[in-house]
Amino acid sequence: MTRLYDDPAAFTEDMVTGFVAAHPEHVRRVPGGVVRAKRARKGKVAVVTGGGSGHYPAFCGVVGPGFADGAVIGNIFTSPSAEDAYSVARAADRGAGVVFSFGNYAGDNMNFGLAVERLQREGIRAHNAVVTDDVASAPSEEAGRRRGVVGDFPVFKVASAAAEEGYDFDGVVRVAERTNERTRSLGVAFDGCTLPGQDHPLFEVPEGRMGLGLGIHGEPGVSEREMPSASELAKILVDGLLAEAPADGGRRVTAILNGLGATKYEELFVVWGTVSRLLAEAGLEVVAPEVGELVTSLDMAGCSLTLTWLDDELERLWQAPADTPAYRKGDAPSSGTAEDDDELPEIEREPVVIAPAEGQRTAAEVVRALDAMAELMREQEDELGRMDSVAGDGDHGRGMTRGSGAAAEAARDIAAQGVGPAAVLVAAGDAWAAKAGGTSGVLWGAALRSFGDLLPDDRPAVGADLVAGAEAALAAVRRLGRAEPGDKTLVDALQPFTAELRAAVGDGGAEAWRRAAQVATKAAADTADLRPRTGRARPLAERSVGTPDPGATSLALALTRIGELLGEREEAA
Amino acid sequence: MTRLYDDPAAFTEDMVTGFVAAHPEHVRRVPGGVVRAKRARKGKVAVVTGGGSGHYPAFCGVVGPGFADGAVIGNIFTSPSAEDAYSVARAADRGAGVVFSFGNYAGDNMNFGLAVERLQREGIRAHNAVVTDDVASAPSEEAGRRRGVVGDFPVFKVASAAAEEGYDFDGVVRVAERTNERTRSLGVAFDGCTLPGQDHPLFEVPEGRMGLGLGIHGEPGVSEREMPSASELAKILVDGLLAEAPADGGRRVTAILNGLGATKYEELFVVWGTVSRLLAEAGLEVVAPEVGELVTSLDMAGCSLTLTWLDDELERLWQAPADTPAYRKGDAPSSGTAEDDDELPEIEREPVVIAPAEGQRTAAEVVRALDAMAELMREQEDELGRMDSVAGDGDHGRGMTRGSGAAAEAARDIAAQGVGPAAVLVAAGDAWAAKAGGTSGVLWGAALRSFGDLLPDDRPAVGADLVAGAEAALAAVRRLGRAEPGDKTLVDALQPFTAELRAAVGDGGAEAWRRAAQVATKAAADTADLRPRTGRARPLAERSVGTPDPGATSLALALTRIGELLGEREEAA
Repeated sequence: MTRLYDDPAAFTEDMVTGFVAAHPEHVRRVPGGVVRAKRARKGKVAVVTGGGSGHYPAFCGVVGPGFADGAVIGNIFTSPSAEDAYSVARAADRGAGVVFSFGNYAGDNMNFGLAVERLQREGIRAHNAVVTDDVASAPSEEAGRRRGVVGDFPVFKVASAAAEEGYDFDGVVRVAERTNERTRSLGVAFDGCTLPGQDHPLFEVPEGRMGLGLGIHGEPGVSEREMPSASELAKILVDGLLAEAPADGGRRVTAILNGLGATKYEELFVVWGTVSRLLAEAGLEVVAPEVGELVTSLDMAGCSLTLTWLDDELERLWQAPADTPAYRKGDAPSSGTAEDDDELPEIEREPVVIAPAEGQRTAAEVVRALDAMAELMREQEDELGRMDSVAGDGDHGRGMTRGSGAAAEAARDIAAQGVGPAAVLVAAGDAWAAKAGGTSGVLWGAALRSFGDLLPDDRPAVGADLVAGAEAALAAVRRLGRAEPGDKTLVDALQPFTAELRAAVGDGGAEAWRRAAQVATKAAADTADLRPRTGRARPLAERSVGTPDPGATSLALALTRIGELLGEREEAA
Repeated sequence: MTRLYDDPAAFTEDMVTGFVAAHPEHVRRVPGGVVRAKRARKGKVAVVTGGGSGHYPAFCGVVGPGFADGAVIGNIFTSPSAEDAYSVARAADRGAGVVFSFGNYAGDNMNFGLAVERLQREGIRAHNAVVTDDVASAPSEEAGRRRGVVGDFPVFKVASAAAEEGYDFDGVVRVAERTNERTRSLGVAFDGCTLPGQDHPLFEVPEGRMGLGLGIHGEPGVSEREMPSASELAKILVDGLLAEAPADGGRRVTAILNGLGATKYEELFVVWGTVSRLLAEAGLEVVAPEVGELVTSLDMAGCSLTLTWLDDELERLWQAPADTPAYRKGDAPSSGTAEDDDELPEIEREPVVIAPAEGQRTAAEVVRALDAMAELMREQEDELGRMDSVAGDGDHGRGMTRGSGAAAEAARDIAAQGVGPAAVLVAAGDAWAAKAGGTSGVLWGAALRSFGDLLPDDRPAVGADLVAGAEAALAAVRRLGRAEPGDKTLVDALQPFTAELRAAVGDGGAEAWRRAAQVATKAAADTADLRPRTGRARPLAERSVGTPDPGATSLALALTRIGELLGEREEAA
């Protein structure tokens, strides 16, 4: 379990502080993560890795010459915000664009996706090279849906070496994607890990048993079986990967036998003895393997095997030198050394546009609504947390409280400068996503931004504006979250709400909203009958049938409260 | 716990196989451990580290240019044998002598001590640089009695860098000893670890508690207390070490915040944030610190802080480049590159000297006695193991079975070549020490060698020979084991046995031996009343009062059996 911390809520912040203090020669801190201590030469494509923390040395441990230009650091096992990713990318960019590379998880896809859009809007080339190596997480026909696990490491490494060598943007993207296409991982877990400040592990594997294909955050695997011997395990891992070998793989591979934290080097070497023999017997030649802890999950017990089928180009890039806090190879690459312009760029804030009086009045109402939501979430935090702990990690209540509180504060601040409702909701959405992190943070952030974009600055908002805003929010949430109705997510409440709002809007905005909120409340309760189809379901997920989805529930609560406010406004008018 | 293994008895062997397979560019295997894949230049002083395994990257993980020339690899938490240490040293030696460096434990002192004596007899300069950094293990007035823990790392590193730079033998010894004098460590443990194949942890720390100063194998510490926060722990560690600062320490230190296995990098960085601040506030400047897993104890939970007060020379050597499997710094040092004579030396066996017929007859009796002992130990293995598990790690039965079996086999082999009793007992003692490992292995090995040295080749052995042999064995055991009567070790049986044998020898050898064996049996039983005064007592040691010492018991059993054989011989004559 994770025993050493001060304030559990500040664990990641404190971790980054200590990490930077221990490695000042390699990294420096920027908002949202770290970048190299010495900037790369101008014109070099930047490779930025990232994701939730708790996986050291992934991801901040591999920032330095020959490897990543920066790492975006989320909370433990939680996607960093789009703002974080944007901030690190801006600090890492040397004028040739930014390639993000990270494992395929919903929250990361959304947040890095939003960061790419923002960078592109500002004229910076940006691309997400998403890693999908975990063969246990989806069948090969749906390889694009697979999770990213230790395959992150060879993909980051090869893409980074290409950038260091001077590849252009398209070249870096090409080798990153080629490496991902030729990389397969299969992992096992023997025991879970406990987040800082929590009493219970994130998941459990029964004593003497092994979860085959269990994800590094406890996501469901292929099967559970009796604990094997070291050589039996080696055979399971090698057979599992060779069955998935790429058609044009060839005979040369590199391999990573990775420990998750509590499975130590001595044990990994015992397993490696058999793995290396089996790979040789299968006719494969192993080039520069790694045996050790490269992508951990706190002190989880377990390990995984990763194979990357090499070609000459990938082999050269895999073997290229690197010099980072946690991973060094060969002599430090000279191409990454400092230049004089070692000052990081200032990130400009979007300019404030003063709105007409009508817009400012609407903005004030939006602030009131956000204040009311923040108060409501504080009241409901424990209950939402309890609901989430059935099938999730129990942090939904805390995430909603942090997000709505940050949104209300940001909204108040910018409204005081005289802006209209759109600017207020953009600021609120950004703050929510940045402070709450994770999947619900980015969804709420995007929903607020999209809703706000359709509110007018120069006249009072009417029912049709509310319908258009709600539909834009639903579209943004569905695009980012890739959730369908029935997946047991907040879409299950937002979609019927939007439909009812449109149907009832002829009766007046406030009345339509109240009725739509009632429909959303019922729909949220109905999610208790659904079996979750997507998302980060855990081995315990079966138990969540009978419990309403916390995301749909918190949305319905918020919509109801806003309906009450709209009614009060009408009465006052 | 340690879950991945095939045959627990072959765990270390399998681990080394996998380790060498993973790192062929850095290491190659030799009997007893590993040496660099490419030998250092001729005339370079060799630095050889070692000790029990289970501490990766200590010790085999730091073999390579700029760091160690070789590592002697014992079983998990068990000293390697003198033969192992000798073998690795011979392979590492480049004509300028060998400096062994290891932590201060009884078994390691004995085995490396015997290896030094053997190397010196062969004209190779050799020295033991013993590390004594653990301030919790003895008061500062008895600093030489302190255990070696993570201080091994800076001492090995500095000594190795000096050798790489071209220091002569005395120079390497000098900086090793100076580094040790200026190094202090203090550790804490939160939870134990489980050896491969065992069901129960080696020791336990109650949930929510912390053992302050607890050793890396569960040796007793200073106190047990409530689990602190990360910053409280940082303060405990910093205050504990600064109170022990060397008088002429100066202001520059290097620091290692070391994780024991299950306490992960994220937690260590959180602690390091406060440690680095407190050190700065104390006016110390920290040079090139290390935060991570350098000396582990399988998956034990806990960490330690090590400080080495630097001077200009130590700082330069600490910062020097190194290139090893687990630790790399700067560019790979060029001074360690290969030469053409990359063949390792053949180690010559001691020549076989044919004995007269009388000597061969005595040798045959010795073989019979060793066979009988091996059979006895097989019968008693479980009982001795149970006895040992009260205060020890329960491996005494297995160690005695392996040692006596190997001794009997080696004795038979060499006796068949026509040697006398001394040569038989030398071979038997060496085999025992090599196969059993640990403390009892080296003591039995030395006892057999010393006893054998006093048996005549050219006439039958008489009572006086037995007395002289027993006294020589006692002297060897006391010299090596540094145990006093009453310390609850095999000395408690061997000492009264020897005294009674001398007193009763006038009555004939066999009768005197039988009576002395009876005295030894009673003395072994009496150890049940003693509280252990020395040795690797565990937190559970109090419970061992009431249980006889297993080492004294197995010795008394063996002496009794030999007495029976001597009686049978007399009757047959």
